[in-house]
Amino acid sequence: MLSFELSMPTKIIFGKGSIAKLGEMLLKNGNRVLLVYGSGSIKKIGLYNQIIKTFNEYNIIYKELSGIKPNPILSTVKKGIELCREHNINLILGAGGGSVIDSIKAISAGVNYKGDVWDFFIGKGNLVNPLPVASILTLSATGSEANGGCVISNEDTKEKLPFVHPLLKPCFSILDPDYTSHLPANQTAAGIADIMSHCIEQYFSNVEETYIQDRLTEAILKTCIHYGPILINNPTDYHARANIMWASTLALIGILGAGKEGDWSTHYIEHKVSAVSDLTHGTGLAILTPHWMNEVLSETTLDKFINFAVNVFNVSPGEDKMFVAKQGIQKLTDFFKSLHIPSTLSETGFYADNNLLNKMANDIQKYGPIGKFKKLDNEAIVRILKSAC
Amino acid sequence: MLSFELSMPTKIIFGKGSIAKLGEMLLKNGNRVLLVYGSGSIKKIGLYNQIIKTFNEYNIIYKELSGIKPNPILSTVKKGIELCREHNINLILGAGGGSVIDSIKAISAGVNYKGDVWDFFIGKGNLVNPLPVASILTLSATGSEANGGCVISNEDTKEKLPFVHPLLKPCFSILDPDYTSHLPANQTAAGIADIMSHCIEQYFSNVEETYIQDRLTEAILKTCIHYGPILINNPTDYHARANIMWASTLALIGILGAGKEGDWSTHYIEHKVSAVSDLTHGTGLAILTPHWMNEVLSETTLDKFINFAVNVFNVSPGEDKMFVAKQGIQKLTDFFKSLHIPSTLSETGFYADNNLLNKMANDIQKYGPIGKFKKLDNEAIVRILKSAC
Repeated sequence: MLSFELSMPTKIIFGKGSIAKLGEMLLKNGNRVLLVYGSGSIKKIGLYNQIIKTFNEYNIIYKELSGIKPNPILSTVKKGIELCREHNINLILGAGGGSVIDSIKAISAGVNYKGDVWDFFIGKGNLVNPLPVASILTLSATGSEANGGCVISNEDTKEKLPFVHPLLKPCFSILDPDYTSHLPANQTAAGIADIMSHCIEQYFSNVEETYIQDRLTEAILKTCIHYGPILINNPTDYHARANIMWASTLALIGILGAGKEGDWSTHYIEHKVSAVSDLTHGTGLAILTPHWMNEVLSETTLDKFINFAVNVFNVSPGEDKMFVAKQGIQKLTDFFKSLHIPSTLSETGFYADNNLLNKMANDIQKYGPIGKFKKLDNEAIVRILKSAC
Repeated sequence: MLSFELSMPTKIIFGKGSIAKLGEMLLKNGNRVLLVYGSGSIKKIGLYNQIIKTFNEYNIIYKELSGIKPNPILSTVKKGIELCREHNINLILGAGGGSVIDSIKAISAGVNYKGDVWDFFIGKGNLVNPLPVASILTLSATGSEANGGCVISNEDTKEKLPFVHPLLKPCFSILDPDYTSHLPANQTAAGIADIMSHCIEQYFSNVEETYIQDRLTEAILKTCIHYGPILINNPTDYHARANIMWASTLALIGILGAGKEGDWSTHYIEHKVSAVSDLTHGTGLAILTPHWMNEVLSETTLDKFINFAVNVFNVSPGEDKMFVAKQGIQKLTDFFKSLHIPSTLSETGFYADNNLLNKMANDIQKYGPIGKFKKLDNEAIVRILKSAC
């Protein structure tokens, strides 16, 4: 196990009706609020009205920034930064899924920074005095509700890059599983794939003696496998929504990765794919992950795959170890299929010729080589993308 | 799953040599420190010198309170409160195991409270402005290093009672597994039993659809079962110490219990036993837990016991469900035996006649009935104690 530092200060307010605590949390955290949301689904489910009612009850001064896109873009972040500066905002509240919560963190980072906020994403810039952020979650997927990470797409450079800083962790997050009950099956499924991908990225690691992290990760994966099909059949099952929502938070709150070094190749590859094609992040991860697995499976990496197959998917341990490992990958592929997630990038409308694939592989490695579990060269990345097409 | 609120703000600094971060943490959290420790084992392992060296390097004004007992007592807590008031302390740093860390929280609660600090433990008193506390852990067991709980023994009333408040969570905790390498096997074993008991108390719950919490709890239990025997054979195995130390923190940081209602009967019974006999807490829990299990196992509670047997101890699920459940209990008993923990209270020198047992049962229920998973009456408590003798 490696050394690590970890704190998880986000106040989680979890459960049916937890929006009732919003006023009390605002009293403690800010009275000049920028409310950030997406396409308006928070209006359909009645959440918008509840928020505004609370703002009025608690004499909150607020401004709104709506229209956050599923792959959130830099220009909207910049608009948010301007709004915060102009209206002397002291709390940014995001109501939505990961794209909204990622956006509020990027806005928060930029408000008191003199340079271009994109600096943070390309490894420049020193984060000082970010504004407090808070969230009301409406999609279980990214885990952004309780960590310091955000991923933003730069429309000009066609880059989609992450920035992670502990000061960007939300001060509170309201997690009501009912807010996810309205989601269509494809979004629920993509969210579950995203959660599982976070687990898998952290599970496949060369750091030794991470028994506790590995068993905890298997616990979250098994939760997704247990409740995924239940939700596809019965989208309003509260307890299934609750288990999946808590899985989304715990998968990326820091516990699974503390003391380890995750791989994250599939995320880097997917970020490029969705920067080029605007594919849903979780769908891209579900398609790419089994191909990444096939690429990195070898005699050297075999043991981890056997643990995955046996402990997560109950594959019987047999003498032919490679067969056991491949069964694990097949079970994962089958599971994503059972959630009706497309199995190939072509099905999602993505098309790339060899030139584009090579350029994508180059771009992916622009800020350094990827693959902590197994280092990938450009050829390997192209092979993964081709086999996923 | 139930609704819940949870935050885990304690900054965990985990790993070999993490004491190097102490100075930086003091700069952020306090410059007038009360250093609290036990019998002096921190001097034997060189930790005391490292702390004092850091204090001197960072110009920290400090006072010391040593001699904290394994079952920490109220009079020492009161001494600590006086020291804090007298020397205008602004941070209480505990270096030791759970008894030291529990003591610093009780001191912290008392400093700015006008009444008797024992009020908090008997359900009176309103906690306002507790002093910040921080810890350097030297025994993996209680989880006190990252939660807001403490248990104190009142020598006068012979009561040992808990107090839990979120404001008592340490601001930082330094967790270096090497600090636990010097421990004798019986302390290591008692610590592991304590961790497992925290898991078991939270696992056995009537709240439905807690799949994610149950799998996470099994992960921590399996970690104890995996590394316990390794540590008994090789006490200085760093990675085994690291996994057990992190298991101790995670078992009671809040994640396993969030959304559930744990049982905690065995803890209440053990607190009475160790208030009467000064037994090591973890040893008492290891002895009592299987007897509690036998008492509450019934057709109604069977399913949870089957999960425990199958998922934690790999018992084969069979047609005779009661047999499977009992095998789980037997495996737990055998596991504690394999760590050379005494199997009966008599072996530890505890003796009680019927009168004392009845009085103990009465005392245990003084502040209300115990047993959330299965309510226990006085007769049931006496049966558990008698069978454990």
